Amino acid sequence: MSGFVSFVSSGPGDPELLTLKAVDRLGRADAVLYDDLSAGPILDHAREGADLVGVGKRAGRPSPRQDHVSRLLVDYARSGQRIVRLKSGDAGVFGRLEEEIVALVEAGIPFEVIPGVTSASAAAAAVGIPLTRRLTARRLQFVTGHDVAGKLPEDLNMAALADPLATTVVYMGKRTFPAFARMLQEAGLPPDTPAMLAESVSHPDESYTPTTLTALAEALEDGVSSAPALIFYGALMDPPEVPEP
Amino acid sequence: MSGFVSFVSSGPGDPELLTLKAVDRLGRADAVLYDDLSAGPILDHAREGADLVGVGKRAGRPSPRQDHVSRLLVDYARSGQRIVRLKSGDAGVFGRLEEEIVALVEAGIPFEVIPGVTSASAAAAAVGIPLTRRLTARRLQFVTGHDVAGKLPEDLNMAALADPLATTVVYMGKRTFPAFARMLQEAGLPPDTPAMLAESVSHPDESYTPTTLTALAEALEDGVSSAPALIFYGALMDPPEVPEP
Repeated sequence: MSGFVSFVSSGPGDPELLTLKAVDRLGRADAVLYDDLSAGPILDHAREGADLVGVGKRAGRPSPRQDHVSRLLVDYARSGQRIVRLKSGDAGVFGRLEEEIVALVEAGIPFEVIPGVTSASAAAAAVGIPLTRRLTARRLQFVTGHDVAGKLPEDLNMAALADPLATTVVYMGKRTFPAFARMLQEAGLPPDTPAMLAESVSHPDESYTPTTLTALAEALEDGVSSAPALIFYGALMDPPEVPEP
Repeated sequence: MSGFVSFVSSGPGDPELLTLKAVDRLGRADAVLYDDLSAGPILDHAREGADLVGVGKRAGRPSPRQDHVSRLLVDYARSGQRIVRLKSGDAGVFGRLEEEIVALVEAGIPFEVIPGVTSASAAAAAVGIPLTRRLTARRLQFVTGHDVAGKLPEDLNMAALADPLATTVVYMGKRTFPAFARMLQEAGLPPDTPAMLAESVSHPDESYTPTTLTALAEALEDGVSSAPALIFYGALMDPPEVPEP
């Protein structure tokens, strides 16, 4: 007899952005395997006595190997428990979900996936702008700013990425952005294209900095903080001045 | 004195995919302005006595004009109430959010945006596949399959859309997909590219049909149901066979 794994998307960090289904699964789990980025007050929803197991992935620090995380997940589930595998944002977006699903299927362990709020949605909402715009941003794309080695991925589709009529969100791309921004400009994206740096989205120390493509690349050239970040660029709406209530 | 508007993302339809913050705002609203697609059991979270006002947008049927919806929203907020403007999926993704934000800013009415689970995340989770894959789908893009006139949008970036190394999700694209699929093939996307039709995502009558680009285009050529749908294509993982619990 084996257990059951719920891959639970934790959303970007604010525990109020958990779904009701995520709260339900956390409250009934015997063990919760979490990444650093999905931890904090969200774990308060786990029931008392549940095993809370950090598997320690965090941008910019050495991470445990993915196959080690998958093996740990299978081992927990084989002990016949209800397991929550908590993943930050939406588990299906840059969450290495496939590797863990494959490990469970190979081990014959049943599972479900609970979707969640991806960080891009939360960042846009925080500044009061939409991710898509009726005429100017009918395409929305999410890309990652680094490959497994921490470098800018190869074989980038520059025609897709240098499109001024899209909203592009770069996940985990602070370190590689100066080089990436040069490639975007070489591919024809204007240097004054609107951009936004979103750091620690939905956490108490969140910050959102509207800027431009080149100004952001220059600012990141001198080094970056360890705060998890998204970079937006493209046909962004100017963040509105929201009147005081 | 004017009221306060919370743009609340309802998620794809399953009330359990509401966030805690969405439930909170619904429970405190004096009036809830909702689209047809965001209605149903989600409205049970509104407090007793709240005004529930359908503003009736639904794919495939005549919709009220966007400026009428914006005006109604401003009128409600001017009466000094707490208003929830409920939008299906994530409000920032193909939700016509910008038009309503601009109307509120012009009228000097304060507001906030609560992000939610977009339908693409819920559909992928339902079949147990990720939206991104480490090597083969490092780019994820969302596009709309129709413009304001219900036609395929012009000026499509075919280099972006015909990329076999991305996951593409087409929102509201059932009717235009046969023509779109021909364009994708002319742009070099192989006819046997994996595709999936996702209908009534997260509703009791949800259905998910894994297929290929050309098989789906042929199936939709003969007419389509009125069920709201997403179309996935690209480097999709095969939906896993999940063992029985």
